[in-house]
Amino acid sequence: MDPAQEKRTDVNDLGEFGLIDHLTKNFPLLHESSVKGIGDDAAIIDSGDLLTVVSTDMLIEGIHFDLMYSPLKHLGYKAVVVNVSDIYAMNATPKQITVSIAISNRFSVEALEELYAGIDLACKRYGVDLVGGDTTSSPKGMSMSITAIGVVEKGKQVYRNTAKVGDLFCVTGDLGAAYLGLQILEREKQIYLENPGVKPDLGDQNYLVGRQLKPEARRDIIMEFAKVDLLPTSMIDISDGLASEVYHICSQSGVGAFVEESGVPIHPDTEVQAIDFKIDPITCALSGGEDYELLFTIDPKDVDKVKFMPGIYIMGEVVPKKDGIKLHTKGGNIHPITAQGWNHF
Amino acid sequence: MDPAQEKRTDVNDLGEFGLIDHLTKNFPLLHESSVKGIGDDAAIIDSGDLLTVVSTDMLIEGIHFDLMYSPLKHLGYKAVVVNVSDIYAMNATPKQITVSIAISNRFSVEALEELYAGIDLACKRYGVDLVGGDTTSSPKGMSMSITAIGVVEKGKQVYRNTAKVGDLFCVTGDLGAAYLGLQILEREKQIYLENPGVKPDLGDQNYLVGRQLKPEARRDIIMEFAKVDLLPTSMIDISDGLASEVYHICSQSGVGAFVEESGVPIHPDTEVQAIDFKIDPITCALSGGEDYELLFTIDPKDVDKVKFMPGIYIMGEVVPKKDGIKLHTKGGNIHPITAQGWNHF
Repeated sequence: MDPAQEKRTDVNDLGEFGLIDHLTKNFPLLHESSVKGIGDDAAIIDSGDLLTVVSTDMLIEGIHFDLMYSPLKHLGYKAVVVNVSDIYAMNATPKQITVSIAISNRFSVEALEELYAGIDLACKRYGVDLVGGDTTSSPKGMSMSITAIGVVEKGKQVYRNTAKVGDLFCVTGDLGAAYLGLQILEREKQIYLENPGVKPDLGDQNYLVGRQLKPEARRDIIMEFAKVDLLPTSMIDISDGLASEVYHICSQSGVGAFVEESGVPIHPDTEVQAIDFKIDPITCALSGGEDYELLFTIDPKDVDKVKFMPGIYIMGEVVPKKDGIKLHTKGGNIHPITAQGWNHF
Repeated sequence: MDPAQEKRTDVNDLGEFGLIDHLTKNFPLLHESSVKGIGDDAAIIDSGDLLTVVSTDMLIEGIHFDLMYSPLKHLGYKAVVVNVSDIYAMNATPKQITVSIAISNRFSVEALEELYAGIDLACKRYGVDLVGGDTTSSPKGMSMSITAIGVVEKGKQVYRNTAKVGDLFCVTGDLGAAYLGLQILEREKQIYLENPGVKPDLGDQNYLVGRQLKPEARRDIIMEFAKVDLLPTSMIDISDGLASEVYHICSQSGVGAFVEESGVPIHPDTEVQAIDFKIDPITCALSGGEDYELLFTIDPKDVDKVKFMPGIYIMGEVVPKKDGIKLHTKGGNIHPITAQGWNHF
């Protein structure tokens, strides 16, 4: 009776991005007000005076978070950050969010109060109003779905598919730290599970763990752009790792990329911890994810506008599509960059 | 380590509506553009020329649907209907939706294609564009979160909290059928589980089962309202049963209600099947839910505008709060009506 049992093609064969494309490719946009549909950080709807920007994310316990080491307050905070980050990635300002949660009966009212305290903190920090949502039960575990709604002046929205050959790739902060923070938390979880008497040793890895548990979205950068009147030629937020995001910009813009390893910002703590875990630090930056920095491209004529912006790193160049997407390593080698994305399936 | 384990207050103590209120009561609306926050069918955002209306719903396998008897195509269709129904309940027109799904690896690409075929059908039927979403994996089962976005002219939005004493309660169609459809499907599921050789016997209950598996939202009614220039004084969609929705309108408007049992429309098939199940048909209408009809109140001066509207039933009156919320039965008795809501927890 269950059609789901007539299993033929495994979703793994398509991967996350392929699956979305496959399922939604035949959905045309009928309304003139649907300015931007699936395929960017957020959808854009023409509301007359302004553009309304809508982004939505689902967070599933056991896939996106582990309550063994993610305090509920941090989880609530992060869930909001992840969504407003998508709105900033359109060069827009988030204004409202809706929060839906499904919870099993193992969660107490007090636990949910903690979650909402984190949501509240993030709402205040980013100036967004909680305007709606849904609360329901779940047979097992917790899932959350957040929709963020923002606005942007017409003509100021920035897409993924508009990078031009000759543009410069910029990034707003160091990469790879959140991934290592997760590895540290996972390690301590395993130690705890094997020996519940041992206290978790997060050592002096506050920076890395903090980047994982309490990331921030780059509201400040969007304000800087407005201040110096800079309109990036394309933009995306780094949720899945630099490789994936460079790939999205390139494939959607029909261009290639040349990324200088030496230009990719990596925090000293990331360098040290990566080596400790026997991982190349650049791999953490390329494939780690959850940094929530912005990756954007600018016209070279705008280089002076970003040069003195604090914490902006120019780390590559947009090249013709035929030249591919490549990393120029510190050692002088050239490697192709492939999209990783999250393959949870 | 898991704060969720410090269980104190059970969410059952608050119920669904109490829980939302409790968790969100301290969230102020900061933006002037946040016209309506939590507490109605949808949130309203001022977008300049028009109002943007946003509604979101989460559907969890094992709570809101059972794939044993709900074909994925129907599920996709219904998931959209449930959301656009909330938009109509604000007297608005849905324009866009986002669909997020979390699925375990038991779902094949073909199964998801079925789901999206249903979503596509509903998008076409209701004229909405699929503009975004998220696809992720889940450790177990399927969950969906849909956000619908609509528009309404300023001043034409209809809330829950604006019913006035003397107004008339109206409903757009028969109630209780979807609930009985579910009971039939549940019965056949149990028979099938005990004896997989027996073919499900849905008898001639196509109407009831259809109301459960493939409900429609009342787009036509919203169009009728516009045609005759009728603005209801309050409105809500019937997802949780008539009792619950009358209660929401009354408690939020600070009024009471007098509902005539003889005025509540009940389909003949509902009458017969309810008796077969040894349930009073009015109980199905009051507490069943999932009818997705609209419950609204009108100023008595507008009664001629609805009198000749096809399928509108006048079934009660708004009374002062002190008179309570009461059912006047066919037998001449008066019973208080209490909100049921979904208490999944």
